[in-house]
Amino acid sequence: MSKELTSRETDYAQWYNDLVLKGGLADYSAVRGCMVIKPYGFALWENMRDQLDRMFKDTGHVNAYFPLFIPKSFLSKEAAHVEGFAKECAVVTHYRLKNDPDGNGIVVDPDAKLEEELIVRPTSETIIWNTYKDWIQSYRDLPLLINQWANVVRWEMRTRLFLRTAEFLWQEGHTAHATALEAVEETERMLDVYASFVEEYMAVPVIKGVKSANERFAGAVDTYCIEALMQDGKALQAGTSHFLGQNFAKAFEVQFLNKENKQEYVWATSWGVSTRLIGALIMAHSDDQGLVLPPRIAPLQVVIVPIYKGNDSKPVIDARVNEIVKSLKTLGIRVKYDNSDNSRPGWKFAEYELQGVPIRVAMGMRDLENNVVEVARRDTKEKKSVAIDGLAQHLSQLLEEIQQNLFNRALVFRNENIRKADSWDEFVNLLDNKGGFISAHWDGSSETEEKIKELTKATIRCIPLGNVKEVGNCILSGKQSEQRVLFARAY
Amino acid sequence: MSKELTSRETDYAQWYNDLVLKGGLADYSAVRGCMVIKPYGFALWENMRDQLDRMFKDTGHVNAYFPLFIPKSFLSKEAAHVEGFAKECAVVTHYRLKNDPDGNGIVVDPDAKLEEELIVRPTSETIIWNTYKDWIQSYRDLPLLINQWANVVRWEMRTRLFLRTAEFLWQEGHTAHATALEAVEETERMLDVYASFVEEYMAVPVIKGVKSANERFAGAVDTYCIEALMQDGKALQAGTSHFLGQNFAKAFEVQFLNKENKQEYVWATSWGVSTRLIGALIMAHSDDQGLVLPPRIAPLQVVIVPIYKGNDSKPVIDARVNEIVKSLKTLGIRVKYDNSDNSRPGWKFAEYELQGVPIRVAMGMRDLENNVVEVARRDTKEKKSVAIDGLAQHLSQLLEEIQQNLFNRALVFRNENIRKADSWDEFVNLLDNKGGFISAHWDGSSETEEKIKELTKATIRCIPLGNVKEVGNCILSGKQSEQRVLFARAY
Repeated sequence: MSKELTSRETDYAQWYNDLVLKGGLADYSAVRGCMVIKPYGFALWENMRDQLDRMFKDTGHVNAYFPLFIPKSFLSKEAAHVEGFAKECAVVTHYRLKNDPDGNGIVVDPDAKLEEELIVRPTSETIIWNTYKDWIQSYRDLPLLINQWANVVRWEMRTRLFLRTAEFLWQEGHTAHATALEAVEETERMLDVYASFVEEYMAVPVIKGVKSANERFAGAVDTYCIEALMQDGKALQAGTSHFLGQNFAKAFEVQFLNKENKQEYVWATSWGVSTRLIGALIMAHSDDQGLVLPPRIAPLQVVIVPIYKGNDSKPVIDARVNEIVKSLKTLGIRVKYDNSDNSRPGWKFAEYELQGVPIRVAMGMRDLENNVVEVARRDTKEKKSVAIDGLAQHLSQLLEEIQQNLFNRALVFRNENIRKADSWDEFVNLLDNKGGFISAHWDGSSETEEKIKELTKATIRCIPLGNVKEVGNCILSGKQSEQRVLFARAY
Repeated sequence: MSKELTSRETDYAQWYNDLVLKGGLADYSAVRGCMVIKPYGFALWENMRDQLDRMFKDTGHVNAYFPLFIPKSFLSKEAAHVEGFAKECAVVTHYRLKNDPDGNGIVVDPDAKLEEELIVRPTSETIIWNTYKDWIQSYRDLPLLINQWANVVRWEMRTRLFLRTAEFLWQEGHTAHATALEAVEETERMLDVYASFVEEYMAVPVIKGVKSANERFAGAVDTYCIEALMQDGKALQAGTSHFLGQNFAKAFEVQFLNKENKQEYVWATSWGVSTRLIGALIMAHSDDQGLVLPPRIAPLQVVIVPIYKGNDSKPVIDARVNEIVKSLKTLGIRVKYDNSDNSRPGWKFAEYELQGVPIRVAMGMRDLENNVVEVARRDTKEKKSVAIDGLAQHLSQLLEEIQQNLFNRALVFRNENIRKADSWDEFVNLLDNKGGFISAHWDGSSETEEKIKELTKATIRCIPLGNVKEVGNCILSGKQSEQRVLFARAY
């Protein structure tokens, strides 16, 4: 019997939660807003992390590790940063517990109060730039291209597994450069890396763009982003790359001797993606039967289930399948043979469907006699009888085909859901009845953007890179506008 | 000009710090007791982590991730655990900052006090067993073989880079089993994994043993450990594996339905190694010229430095070395060609010696003409002229030879520094004048052990596995003893 799942139509939010919980990706924890990433979810994250890490290293970056804690005063050093991040934080005020003198367990020792409170990092610009001060003296020390894989904490009031949790895992790149041009190039390079990763590995198409001032990272000169579209028509910011100008160098007094022997402030970037990407992955591809995972990052790419009656046929099937498993592993395919006696084939089918394993192979005695297996695709649910001869090659190609199909399907959906609106009514109507991205004119002011958000909950997701200039009138204020921007309701 | 290093004889502690800081492994941070792991140090940790991770997966374990925070009350649930860990902790008491009404930056918002304080995990038994409660119902859910790579915080008063820091990186395995026997087997299996890793990859010989009650993990029934010997004659605990009995299952009410359909408490283990291993690595092999890293985990295995006068010869050497680099990479050797103009060969030699790169290759014009290079080993400092033909194969073998040599050297040193003491005077004399491990009789009581520690700062490092029973008299109390145990002063 399969685990019951809520359908998308019945309750999209509940469908999402069902997939995360019943698909074995994550669980709630005893700590408010913090999740447990379960083994299957973590294996998925490992595949994503390892691929991203390769891409970072291929673009010249190295990893390092900086402290979990940030002295409170550091957050105040960059004016915009403090507004954005010194709000909902986990604050460490004491460093010792002691036995309760009244005998009620343990209590905080009032004598162990920190002179200065420590903040659990919500992001690490401040502690890192405070360190870079000691590492950078001359142009010879630049560029500094460092990435960190870490946990961060932002005390969110309303949390959702993967999408918004108090603690989450991420990577944060922090680079230092001798010129503004180099730093901007780095910002764009990493945006491209993110876009390639999300499209080629997660099979989720993205739009690259620049954020409006309102949506900019606290402390950035420019925030670049990639925006993806979920099946419910809401957008999701999948990654950001910030050009920080000299803001943090000035806040932490990081200067270098340039080639002309003059002191100059260093130019900075930072960029990050997080376990939130798993939320995007789920909502981009999955269906009412469960998760649908792209082969390139799926923890398990192929599962093989034997179908037999009586104990005589099992060893025969086992022997044959073990050969197949070996041939699949030779091609680097992540395969599992599930011949456990605990559950029946039907239950296993439903379970692996729920877990989004891209290909399911079934083999019964008659298949074996005919030298075939039944191959079922998770994405299209097609089933086919396939010869055992050359099966590994066939499945290897099929995995690539599924990867492509998932991307194409998501791309068609995304493209069908970018619509133009040329009046306020049209804009509101599209938002309420269609969702998706709306391409509309905006007068460029923060006020108007804020007003639109208040009225509709839609935000400017980005000004797409290479946007075509087009004279028009702002959807709300009617003032002159020089280009359309992309609006959407978003996660 | 090389960076100046303190010699071991002058000041061993300062020598260690010089190597960590000037060798580019780690740095102090602005947060008391927390270190920054620099890119070179982190690359070393990545190699260690990746290898351990492979060994964990090969023994059937999977990774997951549990919350950073532990509710204060959880620490009190296991009686011994609370004594050991609910002391020097980072305590989160508030979840919000706000602008100081007096205009002095930001302050903790008194309205945002947590109902129950959260402790930054010093170890995760409690939060994990609280989660396992929901994951384990039947014997079919067992064993649960989970590992986590994470940061932990223990508020240490005196800290030393890698050896003892407030925050450190580690892995913690937490497994659940249906029987005591299975759990003990797991405890021993993971001790063996640690011993193999430390000996085969870090080239550090270890003694496997069991801790005395005093040195046991807080909440364990038995703590197994591997103990290594540093060059200054002090011991270092390199890893521990704990048989936790049913202690945590009882504290968190984790029962399962066994095959006889009866509720039973689950049996547990936990095991961990940390970035502390890097401290052990440094102190086991390095010398007065800098780090000495074992090839199997060295971030860089071979560095090639060109030697030329005038700009004419450089492109010729570059071309030839690039071919060599390619052939080395084909064999999977981690190689760097440093042809930067910033510094002279002598400076580079000293720098890579400091960084402990196992093999340095130098090539000048005359070498090129003779179709040879100069190969220098970091471990023995031998230099040899080697033919370019077959160089990659030669270096590949040499790396293995260096790996073996480091282990053998450390093993000889370790074995020479295990001595028997049969009287108190002899014991104290050996401790003060020779150091190393001292094999001596002990009456088995915690009191005597405590007394010996007070008098000499030596602790029982372990009761070696497979220890020979031998009747004797306790070194301090003179009472009867059934076996010798290993004492040492330790890190």
